[in-house]
Amino acid sequence: MDPAEALFAALQQGDRSALGRAITLVESTRTADQETGRALLRMCKPGDAPTGRIGITGIPGAGKSTLIDALGLLLIDHGHRVAVLAVDPSSARTGGSILGDKTRMERLSQRTEAFIRPTAAAGHLGGAARRTREAILLCEAAGYDRILVETVGTGQNELEADAISDVSVLLMVAGTGDELQGIKRGIMESADIIAFTKCEGAMRAQAERARRELKGALDLMPARPSGKRAEVILTSALEGDGLPELTESLQQLIAEGHSTGYLAHRRKEQAVQWLDHAISDGLRAAFERSGAVAQALPALKQAVRNSEMSPFEAADELLRLFRTDGEPLP
Amino acid sequence: MDPAEALFAALQQGDRSALGRAITLVESTRTADQETGRALLRMCKPGDAPTGRIGITGIPGAGKSTLIDALGLLLIDHGHRVAVLAVDPSSARTGGSILGDKTRMERLSQRTEAFIRPTAAAGHLGGAARRTREAILLCEAAGYDRILVETVGTGQNELEADAISDVSVLLMVAGTGDELQGIKRGIMESADIIAFTKCEGAMRAQAERARRELKGALDLMPARPSGKRAEVILTSALEGDGLPELTESLQQLIAEGHSTGYLAHRRKEQAVQWLDHAISDGLRAAFERSGAVAQALPALKQAVRNSEMSPFEAADELLRLFRTDGEPLP
Repeated sequence: MDPAEALFAALQQGDRSALGRAITLVESTRTADQETGRALLRMCKPGDAPTGRIGITGIPGAGKSTLIDALGLLLIDHGHRVAVLAVDPSSARTGGSILGDKTRMERLSQRTEAFIRPTAAAGHLGGAARRTREAILLCEAAGYDRILVETVGTGQNELEADAISDVSVLLMVAGTGDELQGIKRGIMESADIIAFTKCEGAMRAQAERARRELKGALDLMPARPSGKRAEVILTSALEGDGLPELTESLQQLIAEGHSTGYLAHRRKEQAVQWLDHAISDGLRAAFERSGAVAQALPALKQAVRNSEMSPFEAADELLRLFRTDGEPLP
Repeated sequence: MDPAEALFAALQQGDRSALGRAITLVESTRTADQETGRALLRMCKPGDAPTGRIGITGIPGAGKSTLIDALGLLLIDHGHRVAVLAVDPSSARTGGSILGDKTRMERLSQRTEAFIRPTAAAGHLGGAARRTREAILLCEAAGYDRILVETVGTGQNELEADAISDVSVLLMVAGTGDELQGIKRGIMESADIIAFTKCEGAMRAQAERARRELKGALDLMPARPSGKRAEVILTSALEGDGLPELTESLQQLIAEGHSTGYLAHRRKEQAVQWLDHAISDGLRAAFERSGAVAQALPALKQAVRNSEMSPFEAADELLRLFRTDGEPLP
């Protein structure tokens, strides 16, 4: 049996360590690994299986890990196997991971029904989200049917999260200016559920007020592609409030999404969207790898900066160099 | 004298009809015209002349034409020659122009110090903004030193407007949900001045309230690259209120921008940004013109949609076809 087939067989047995190795394989930059990884991914076809891919977005400090810890346990109580992944574009710089060690999800990490994995850094824009998308397919092949994808809310990433998740939850803390930040960044447009976290003690009343304001704002926005408007839920991981409600809402959105065919449609459209991104990324990457382009670019850029050349003339010149440069694609 | 040189000489005389012909030339899709247009644009180097490029953005019905009519007259009173252009990406579809006929700026269109021109449609994304940027250079060469660029606020275009203007004004009507829409779309981030229009009669009190709310919101946002926060001004074209204040603010922003060197720097950065966009657009256009790509695309897209192929494999295949396709750049 070739390595990809062997790994796929192990995945189908629900072998946790095989899943870890499979993700490492598709993240690898070694050519041999990449070939095996691609072969493996071809076997893990994303079907219409009623799995749920749940995006969890929020700024640092919004309480993502704590909420995921609690939500994961509730989903296990509903009979699911739960995988936790993270889109972490920043780790290319820091070398770290937003999940840090697993102790941040202390209870969930001790459960055999859970698999927790920060996705490793990927070099270029969109790379981290792509790796996460591939990891989702591997998790599903290994029998995990609820995938929680954690992203840090920085404007760029939510849209990527939208391109991999079935439903998405935006976490906010009342009174931190988040409400506005959320609106400003267009994140709210891609949230199915907005959950205020840390709604305990004095924060409770503030969150109630924030919920009312937010509901007013949401009424002015277009409905989600699913046809619904975002729900707003107050949660407290400390007191356990709102988490069963959040779990129920997510379960219902996923179930409805599958029964109406909306999620099958959404996943197909996401794949086409990824094709489009991959083409643009690939064109740009090939352009930047061109030796002729690299040689000419600094002087042309300087000429454009100094108004000695129009940006469009410079671009035409660079594109000509690119097309006549014999360098092959990778 | 070659046609480009002749036209340039006429422009420098401030010949209005020559300016009209020059803009038509750079908008032309005929090869011969394009060559002459490029030669002409090479002569119209965007210098550090203390001209002011003012972006005016707002949703349809915000009162853009009325405000431009009044603002243009005030700028003429300040001794300027005023050109009005429009970024109109929608006209590719409608065949129309957002300015409609010039009667929408009735008073301004009768002044010899004013030149009013809707920019014709351009086929692809970014095309309309590019044409407008070129028209600005032609207007400046013809001695117009205040260029008002009108854009319809639809989310995409403001950013393009930001890439051609020195300062930008966002028009809002109080009580129409605009405040929130502005926030949502990130338009506010790129506005130097937010002007409420139609602040007369009962609308006045509503606008006062909206201004207070907006100021609170603006305090939470990052400052503009110029180092300032957006100003909020209430205007009434009907009663003439706020327009002198708006004119003063614009004049001061432009004067300061030139004296500090901020605008020279900004224009250089805009040019580099245009180079970047032109490369991405050009790569994509070349890709889409490739016969081999066009032949393979429908089947590959369908395979991706049906999960028979990963989007990344399909993209790699298409990029390979593109690179081995012998088709030249235009």
